Amino acid sequence: MRNYTLLGTCPDKVGIVARITGFIAEHGGSIIRANQYEDIETRMFYMRYVVDANTLNMDAESFRQAFIPIAQELDMEWRLTDSEVPQRVVLLVSKLEHCLADLLHLWRSGDLPFDLACVISNHEDMRRLVEWHGVPYHYVPVPKDEEGKRAAFDQTAQLIDQAKPDTIVLARYMQILPPWLCRAYPNRIINIHHSFLPSFIGAKPYHQAFQRGVKLTGATCHYVTEELDAGPIIEQDVVRIRHHDTVEDLVRLGKDVEKTVLARGLRYHLEDRVLVQGNKTVVFT
Amino acid sequence: MRNYTLLGTCPDKVGIVARITGFIAEHGGSIIRANQYEDIETRMFYMRYVVDANTLNMDAESFRQAFIPIAQELDMEWRLTDSEVPQRVVLLVSKLEHCLADLLHLWRSGDLPFDLACVISNHEDMRRLVEWHGVPYHYVPVPKDEEGKRAAFDQTAQLIDQAKPDTIVLARYMQILPPWLCRAYPNRIINIHHSFLPSFIGAKPYHQAFQRGVKLTGATCHYVTEELDAGPIIEQDVVRIRHHDTVEDLVRLGKDVEKTVLARGLRYHLEDRVLVQGNKTVVFT
Amino acid sequence: MRNYTLLGTCPDKVGIVARITGFIAEHGGSIIRANQYEDIETRMFYMRYVVDANTLNMDAESFRQAFIPIAQELDMEWRLTDSEVPQRVVLLVSKLEHCLADLLHLWRSGDLPFDLACVISNHEDMRRLVEWHGVPYHYVPVPKDEEGKRAAFDQTAQLIDQAKPDTIVLARYMQILPPWLCRAYPNRIINIHHSFLPSFIGAKPYHQAFQRGVKLTGATCHYVTEELDAGPIIEQDVVRIRHHDTVEDLVRLGKDVEKTVLARGLRYHLEDRVLVQGNKTVVFT
Amino acid sequence: MRNYTLLGTCPDKVGIVARITGFIAEHGGSIIRANQYEDIETRMFYMRYVVDANTLNMDAESFRQAFIPIAQELDMEWRLTDSEVPQRVVLLVSKLEHCLADLLHLWRSGDLPFDLACVISNHEDMRRLVEWHGVPYHYVPVPKDEEGKRAAFDQTAQLIDQAKPDTIVLARYMQILPPWLCRAYPNRIINIHHSFLPSFIGAKPYHQAFQRGVKLTGATCHYVTEELDAGPIIEQDVVRIRHHDTVEDLVRLGKDVEKTVLARGLRYHLEDRVLVQGNKTVVFT
Repeated sequence: MRNYTLLGTCPDKVGIVARITGFIAEHGGSIIRANQYEDIETRMFYMRYVVDANTLNMDAESFRQAFIPIAQELDMEWRLTDSEVPQRVVLLVSKLEHCLADLLHLWRSGDLPFDLACVISNHEDMRRLVEWHGVPYHYVPVPKDEEGKRAAFDQTAQLIDQAKPDTIVLARYMQILPPWLCRAYPNRIINIHHSFLPSFIGAKPYHQAFQRGVKLTGATCHYVTEELDAGPIIEQDVVRIRHHDTVEDLVRLGKDVEKTVLARGLRYHLEDRVLVQGNKTVVFT
Repeated sequence: MRNYTLLGTCPDKVGIVARITGFIAEHGGSIIRANQYEDIETRMFYMRYVVDANTLNMDAESFRQAFIPIAQELDMEWRLTDSEVPQRVVLLVSKLEHCLADLLHLWRSGDLPFDLACVISNHEDMRRLVEWHGVPYHYVPVPKDEEGKRAAFDQTAQLIDQAKPDTIVLARYMQILPPWLCRAYPNRIINIHHSFLPSFIGAKPYHQAFQRGVKLTGATCHYVTEELDAGPIIEQDVVRIRHHDTVEDLVRLGKDVEKTVLARGLRYHLEDRVLVQGNKTVVFT
Repeated sequence: MRNYTLLGTCPDKVGIVARITGFIAEHGGSIIRANQYEDIETRMFYMRYVVDANTLNMDAESFRQAFIPIAQELDMEWRLTDSEVPQRVVLLVSKLEHCLADLLHLWRSGDLPFDLACVISNHEDMRRLVEWHGVPYHYVPVPKDEEGKRAAFDQTAQLIDQAKPDTIVLARYMQILPPWLCRAYPNRIINIHHSFLPSFIGAKPYHQAFQRGVKLTGATCHYVTEELDAGPIIEQDVVRIRHHDTVEDLVRLGKDVEKTVLARGLRYHLEDRVLVQGNKTVVFT
Repeated sequence: MRNYTLLGTCPDKVGIVARITGFIAEHGGSIIRANQYEDIETRMFYMRYVVDANTLNMDAESFRQAFIPIAQELDMEWRLTDSEVPQRVVLLVSKLEHCLADLLHLWRSGDLPFDLACVISNHEDMRRLVEWHGVPYHYVPVPKDEEGKRAAFDQTAQLIDQAKPDTIVLARYMQILPPWLCRAYPNRIINIHHSFLPSFIGAKPYHQAFQRGVKLTGATCHYVTEELDAGPIIEQDVVRIRHHDTVEDLVRLGKDVEKTVLARGLRYHLEDRVLVQGNKTVVFT
């Protein structure tokens, strides 16, 4: 079933839902799923409508044109997506395979629909796996010195730009993106951090968790912003650990949570269920 | 903040949401929360709207009157509840204290708002606890013979009817209600079953779980229907068990899940988040 | 069944288990449960043995006497507890009832066996509930000024000392204990912190969690040390939250996790399952 | 670190642990991990010892020889495994890729160490993926008629026998093995069932779960016995579902749980943590 998804946010006032659902009904549209949320503190309104495309008397482009005056009237930021136009994704990865392997499986099997433009890595390790999938693999090593780093990220950014992605996924990419690159794709770069943020920000979170003696460890899927590990959180989960678990056990147990949380968070994003609200997310599940 | 909650279900067609939200907007109503769900198989539509009562130009009774023609037009079953009119509840309990104690605490502290009409029990054990709370306690022993049983349930039903409850909660009441009593309060009698249904229906589920060697045990909060343990499920949860756990350990671990699941399921019900759909529930959380 | 539980820790070397289980076997003791753990980093050994008291040819005191030379030989810190001598507990609470109510229920029903010496509070709110249980209630207000505070904690410490407790539980006691009081009861003061530590240390963790937009919130049961919220963690758990949950919702959802985590952590402690290892815990479940 | 793992079960009596740990200590063995469990009902004793191989004054074969008289004395069923001799595994799969892909990743990356002898399937779908891994792929179609079925399972059994596996994994193999084949590898065939057993035994469990309206769905990893879906359970887990989830959503959400539960259960088995006790398992985690 072909659907259009209308996502929007605007200042709250009486009659928004009536205005929008009235517009959809006028054009014969059957609403499959609807979510609204009004933030009481900020008086902002967030919404997601999924409309059965076959019931509408217009196509996606006509819908967009017709919706412009309503959006202006409501002072709404919005977008309309088409379930038959999958998002275009670029994956970045370093040496750890578990998240990449899981995403490649979900892509290959069609369980998570998206267009995979290419994989970029600062190592060669994943080339064979990626190329077997028929996906271009770009090796861009990142040196430690400032100048080398800058050149590497220029090249990375160029490769990303050429791929024209909707979404960029850091599937355990162990480099910190420069601020200008974060800014270039706001709310479109997704990272998986291997801790239950805001615990254990930065390097070696499993070592930090081990030292602190926590009884649960976790993973956090979030949008990348200029501030390290501080962007809007999309999804989190945890796994129980025991006193006899070593750092290596934590790493292994964490891998399961990381891949699950990244896949779940990316699914929410690709299905247009996520709206960013300041440094938080509204996730319509 | 005083709210009105409008719950409804009707056959799906284009324009329902527009019709209803249009009506609310006409009367100045600000929608705080909205949920819709369309069941694709049955083509039935389910909805819940929470409206800020202070923004409306009418009171609850006027709302109900004004909504009647719309409901008829849409062939909708519906109800409008007022956050300042708490539901009236009757609790039934036998000898086990954990669920009762938790509900009494939630009631006493105001963490779960409802009016507690009375407690009915087939044992005297809980009298002191209940009466300390200033709540009437009715002792109705249930004999094993048919005639005695019938008389006991007649008396129980009479006590319930006199209390004029909106909702009846079986908080580990270890008797099977007669069918005529189940039918008298459709979708208004809530039971907590001490297993993860449909596993281990009937008596001694923890013994059954122990024998089968399951690795998780659970609890199920459901509406009571004539068929034992087969009514619409409102909420479920599980807890991990280990090979060294005895039946007594399962009972103890289960108590935590039972009280949590009952409190959660009852909250959904009292907050008018639950709509029954055949033998299933729509829960707008 | 009467049991003795032998808990111990010593530097690791070959033959410890053989030595101890040999000693128990010599005296006819049947081992019901045994746990050992060797920390690879520190080369320390931790153990817990539960022995069927009826199979032993000596009582607890004779066991202790006979075990002294073995403990010296192994350089072991140890204790032997008797299942028929329940621990003596003092509860401290402020105004929030949920943890106290849950512990009082577990105590009253015998689901968690301990001797409840008294409850101490800096408010009068919980007096009626506690006294109904036949438990002494001491009201010790804590003023804001340094001198008043010192006097209040002197009095609190005196009341604790008089009660001769094995364990002190801070069941949402909203005051920071002075360092000298923490030091007086090492690994015997248990606190429930209303966040998933080390996230959101200090005041108003639910507000902090709300601001950060986390998708799970949690609770942490830990031993109290001089450094705030930094003591050895005994147990933790989390609950899922949604974008529409307000701070008040977080507080309410958190209450369920707090009481569950405190009850679970306290059970581990009272059943002598917890050994402290530096700033971490070994929990033999 | 090279380890030997000693697994055993025998009738309980005083002195078993002392006898065995005494034997290990005599030979200089340092015990890394030890677990014992005494079943109170059956008076059977279950144990697992992990010994640092480098501390022992004998190799695995000499250990086995020296242990024979002790095992006879204790009437013990036992085995000693060597961490440097990984188990040999045969995988069976039909058309669904998620469990196979996950196990292949865990094998390829070394995250779950075992020797992969071959993959057998009643379909050709997974050939390309398996062969890319350099693993032999045997296609054995299973016809619907009795005679064809018998021939197919004869061939399957022959392929299994030739591979000389320690363990056989049904990674969503959608055929019921004949009883004689189940009997040939007792407690060595591991299946993943796509429901929370004993709920929804047999075919189409997600459809059954959908019809019943459960709020959680699950997966069960168990040993295969002659009775369908009734063998000893090794591991289970669940995932929350919502009223708006279709059967297809359940299938998708279930895939995550299935692969996680199978990987976890298989790990317990391959690490020699599982002992079968009648129709239940003792899992030393």
